Parts: sequence; structure tokens; C-alpha cells
Amino acid sequence: MALPTKATHQQTRVHNERLVVRTVYDLGPISRADVARQTGLTRTTVSDVVGGLIDEGVVREIGRGPSSGGKAPILLEVDQESRLVVGLDLGEEHFAGSVVNLRGELRRTVELPVAGRDGDDAVALVFDLLDRLLAGTSAPLLGIGIGTPGLVDTRSGTIRRAVNLDWRDLPLGAIVADRYGVPVNVANDSQAAALAEYTYAGEGRVPNLIAIRVGRGVGAGLILRGALFQGDGSGAGEIGHTVVDDDGLLCRCGRIGCLETVAGGRGIEERAAAATGRPTDLEAIRAAAGAGEAWATAIVDGAGAALGRAIAALIGALDVQRIVLIGPVTDLGDRWLAAVRREARDRALAPLADDVEISIGRPTTNVVVRGASALLVARELGLSLAR
Amino acid sequence: MALPTKATHQQTRVHNERLVVRTVYDLGPISRADVARQTGLTRTTVSDVVGGLIDEGVVREIGRGPSSGGKAPILLEVDQESRLVVGLDLGEEHFAGSVVNLRGELRRTVELPVAGRDGDDAVALVFDLLDRLLAGTSAPLLGIGIGTPGLVDTRSGTIRRAVNLDWRDLPLGAIVADRYGVPVNVANDSQAAALAEYTYAGEGRVPNLIAIRVGRGVGAGLILRGALFQGDGSGAGEIGHTVVDDDGLLCRCGRIGCLETVAGGRGIEERAAAATGRPTDLEAIRAAAGAGEAWATAIVDGAGAALGRAIAALIGALDVQRIVLIGPVTDLGDRWLAAVRREARDRALAPLADDVEISIGRPTTNVVVRGASALLVARELGLSLAR
Repeated sequence: MALPTKATHQQTRVHNERLVVRTVYDLGPISRADVARQTGLTRTTVSDVVGGLIDEGVVREIGRGPSSGGKAPILLEVDQESRLVVGLDLGEEHFAGSVVNLRGELRRTVELPVAGRDGDDAVALVFDLLDRLLAGTSAPLLGIGIGTPGLVDTRSGTIRRAVNLDWRDLPLGAIVADRYGVPVNVANDSQAAALAEYTYAGEGRVPNLIAIRVGRGVGAGLILRGALFQGDGSGAGEIGHTVVDDDGLLCRCGRIGCLETVAGGRGIEERAAAATGRPTDLEAIRAAAGAGEAWATAIVDGAGAALGRAIAALIGALDVQRIVLIGPVTDLGDRWLAAVRREARDRALAPLADDVEISIGRPTTNVVVRGASALLVARELGLSLAR
Repeated sequence: MALPTKATHQQTRVHNERLVVRTVYDLGPISRADVARQTGLTRTTVSDVVGGLIDEGVVREIGRGPSSGGKAPILLEVDQESRLVVGLDLGEEHFAGSVVNLRGELRRTVELPVAGRDGDDAVALVFDLLDRLLAGTSAPLLGIGIGTPGLVDTRSGTIRRAVNLDWRDLPLGAIVADRYGVPVNVANDSQAAALAEYTYAGEGRVPNLIAIRVGRGVGAGLILRGALFQGDGSGAGEIGHTVVDDDGLLCRCGRIGCLETVAGGRGIEERAAAATGRPTDLEAIRAAAGAGEAWATAIVDGAGAALGRAIAALIGALDVQRIVLIGPVTDLGDRWLAAVRREARDRALAPLADDVEISIGRPTTNVVVRGASALLVARELGLSLAR
């Protein structure tokens, strides 16, 4: 068993700096004396650390607060514009990105169509997007967070496999870090979305939640005990390629009947095209189902039920009560959501299923971008972007 | 966000005591000076804490070690017989229990047949088992760990639902703690088994593993990031009552086609009875399958495949690479295990499934008893029972 050893001086310094930044960030405006009281650090240590943070521009003095008898104390706050963070969402149709400040507030957003680019061309598109986002920004860049589809090894920033973009063992994190000279975090888009749902939940924050992204692919991000759980090979949540229908459609992974062929957007549109004899997108399917057309209601109900079955398995496995659905397929609306809920409830053990809340989350791109930023800021500064 | 506050004096004392016990336990025989070096505590603190532990009999002096120049130091070790722990496995056919020492070594084992008892009679059987286990023991009892089937709220020690024993919202932990005057921990049997597999893995220990108990029921215990994950309602791993076969058998939970009706022991025996026209137990099925009888190979392959499908879903959800199977159904042997592995591999995303190791674990009762003890000792002393 590894025994705890005395923290080295360097570790202690970093730890104290993070503790002070977090305290000022969460509780500021606040005096040095109150930071010392809150953190249990000595006043001397707090003054040293705050001095360094003021030199770096992260913390600033904003004048004197009310006196409690003696001299009124100088108040500190984090300068939320002192560092910028970039979050990217490498989506199916668009690569989108935003520059955010240290509170996660959007400062600039750019979106570029993918238009079928893959391989090196898709990497070039990432550079193009980043160049446009960074042009004309003045504050130092803290780092870049990237949410991408596919299997991602977050530790190394390597995309193990992203079928859409034809990326395999691509060290995207290292490539981007080399070019821009800042720390880069790469996460799966569903995992980034889960992190955003957790980070920005505010008062309703719970320690365990599952975010499921239903687009062309289907993937989940798991927050367990307040942290992203990625599994042994960073593949936790890759539920889209579990075979659920032996007589199903061919999946782009090469197998037959994966969950995404039944519950994902492309499979839904293919079924609709077969039923109508012409290309039919999600919006048209939703409209037809709303008008009560039998082919459309059958497709919407079937897709929702397939996802519901996968959710029932997740409920049995993890007993997580907060499940958030995001992605283009959620546009199928209430009828689809009702089918998801019904099937999940009917197939999971009653005492578990009774307590589960399945809901539609915030808009996807925004969620992935903010999740990617949140992960980066958490790793670099130890801050949680949301109050 | 909750801010860290200065540790209270009491918390510090408990923390230091645990740190010292763990150090002596893992590294003993060891001198006070080496404990101070390992822990980063001052020699004065170590001496104070060790004095208290010697008074309590948990730590003892065993003479002087080799001198490195000056006076030879007195060596300390944990007296592994100074406290006893009881672990129980409330199994389907038998309630079994063992008295173990602080190294998890069995000191006494008792097994009583359940013989259909349920409700209050089953609680009386637990008392009977504990009375027999404790008769004639002399060292103080540190506590009692209980592994039980069903949905268990570990925090309160309440059994929310155990179908076999007709227990519902039974505060078993409180009832046993009242009677024996010691701390009691109650966990689901699969969860206890997972903890035992993790604790006693030795050098091969990995941070994530899933233990699946396949008996009459089917349940999993999840170790994620080195700790038991129980979910929001302590129901994580309750995979046995997820519906997998819409045209299946009636389950004892009241639904049709739950996983346990296909992969569990009772469902397997029912299918065999239907095929042979007479009661047929697992041993007979295994023998018939070994002799190549078609009805038996079909049943063994089908049961293995059903479990394999559930495992594929777990792999997709969690990307956990170590999966251990325990329980009576594992007696079906290699053919069954091959079917489990094949189906799990064929249905999970290839890059994930390739790295998964599915194996048969140690004998169930032993595993559950030791897991229940390990959980208790970890909670009460902060020790991991295995080196």
C-alpha cells in the first residue's frame, strides 16, 4: 500500500495557491484575514500567495471594506477576465468553439461547417477554428478544452477512434498544445456534456448523473461521486455500439444492430426514408408524428423505446437517479421522451426506476463547449466555473 | 461550494491514529522513529498515539531491532488477534459466518441451513448464527459485517427488499447492533464479494472491477476508483431484474423475462426440468452438457449468452476490464464461461471488449464473508485486511 508521505514544498505551494484562489473566487470580495480564517492558513502564507496572484493578475485589490473597529481591510477578488479559456465542440455537422472567461461566461463564439472533412482536413479545420477564436484576444490563454466524438484517452489527449472523422490514435491534445503553447484537455463530447450538466447545476447539483448524447451516435458521460468516471480505457459511456438488435441495420462500426442503428439519428432517418420513399429528416419525422401519421409515430416510439431499454440497463448497473438527454434526436420531442421514460421504467427494477428523473438537457454545443472549458479550468486552477 | 475548514482536534486525533495503525499494520515490525518518518508526524505525536494503541492492545512491542549505531529501537507490530470481526453471508440455502482476525484469517466458521425460513424466523436464524460464532471467543469484537441478498441501504443498514427472505425495509443493522453492542455494516452480497475480490487481489489489484454473483438471483458489485460504488439508492449492480426477454418466464419480482429468469440458477433448472420432464439440478445439467446432450448444451449456452449480453452492456457503460464471476451457476464450468465470454465480446464495442478479462472467482461464501469483514474493518479502523 502506498503510504502518504510528507508533501513536498512545491506541492504545498501549489496546493495553497489553489486553496487561496478558490476561496477568493467563491467568497470574494474578501479580505486577506478572512481568507486565512477560511483556509486555516497563516496570515503570512496568505499574504505571500496573494502577492504572487496579484503579480500574475489573477487576483486584484478592489479597495477597503467596512471596518470592524480598526483599520478597514483591503478586499480581494478574482479578475474573471484575467485569463481566457477556449472550449471546442467538434460536432457532427459543425465544429463550434467559444472563448470564455474564468466564470465560464461566453466572450466570443465561432462555428464552422464540417462539410464532410475528415482526417488531416478535419485537424486543419480545428486549427482554423482556434485561429479565428483567438484573433484579437488580449488576455493570456489559460488553455484549451476540446469535446470530441469517439473514444478518447483523456490522460494523453489521444483520440483512439472517431469513426465520423476517420481519426484513429490521433494525439490531438499534443498537436494542439504544440501549436498554441498552452495546456489542452481532450474529452469525449458526452463526457464533457455530463461535466457541464454537473458543473452548472447550481443548487440542484447531485453527486451522480448520466448525460446521454443522442445524435448520429449515442454516447453517455458518467458523473459518479462528483467526478467524471472514464473507466479503464477512457471508454465508459460508449453505449452506442452495444448490439441490441440481432436482425438490425449495419452499423458504421461494422457490426449489425448496435444501439445507435436503432436509437441514433441516422438509423431513425433511414427508417423514415424506407417508410416514405424519400429522404426524411428528424424535423419532418417529428412533424409527421405530431400529425399522427402511423409510420412516424411507430419510428418515434421505437427509437425512444430502444434508448429506454439501454437506460434501464444503466439504471440497473448504476442506480443513478438523474439522467439528462441531449443532442439532435431530443428534438423529436415529448412523444419520444415519453417512450424513453416508459420503456426505462417498465424494464428496470421498480424500487430503482421509481426514483429516476429523465429529462432533456440544455442545447448541445453550448453544453459541450462549457463542459470542455470547465474540465480545463478545474484541472489548471482547481476552480469550479459555476458558483 | 463547501470550503475545507481546519480539522478539529478530534478529527486530527482519529486521523493520526488511523495513519499510525495502518503504517504499523502494513510495515511492521517497525520502530516509532520509522513510523514518524513514514507518516510525516512528529515523534512526540507518534509516541502519544502508539501509547494509546498499546493500552488498547491493538499494537504491541516485540523487542529491539538491529541498531544502526545508537541504542537499538523497540519494534512495534499490530496484534492481529487483538480484535475479532464477524462476517456473515446470508445465502440462499445457508446462512454462513466466520470469525476472522485483523488479517482476515478465518478463526471459526459456522453454517446453518435456511430451510425455507423467512421474515422474523430468518432474523432469529441470524441471531442463532451469531450466538454460535461468538460463544467462547475472548478477544473484543470490533464489529459485524453482513452480506445479504437484495437491495440494501448500506448507510442505514436497512434491507429495502430481499425477495427470498421476505424482508422489506428491515433495519437489520440496527437490530443486530442493538443486540450485540458493536458497529454493524450491512452490504449486498454481490457488493461484499466485489470488495473481497478487490481487497484480496494482492499485487494484481486494479482500481476498477465488477464482481457478478450468479445464483438464484443475479447481482453485481462495482468497485470504481478503488471503492465500492452503490449508487443513489444503494442499488448499483442490481442487474438481475432488468427485463431482457419479453417472451420469457415469470420472475419472482412479478415481471416477465428479467435477466435472472434467463441467466439465474432457478430459470436454468426450470428450463432443464421442462426439457427432461423431471427435476434437474445444475450438477446434472453440467454433466449432461459434458456428455454432449443437446438439451443441456442449449441450456448452458443460452444461460451463458444471456449473462454475456448483460456484461456487454456493463462494458459499454463502464469500460471496466476486470470482471469476476461467482456463485453456484459458475459450477456449470468451462462451456458456460466460454458462452459468457463469446457473447460479451461479440456485443460490446471492439476496442473496449478486447481488453476485458472475464474469470471465475473464489468460492462464494468465503468471498462474501471476507468482503463483509473487509468492509467493517475498513470503516472501523481504516485498515485494508490484505497486505
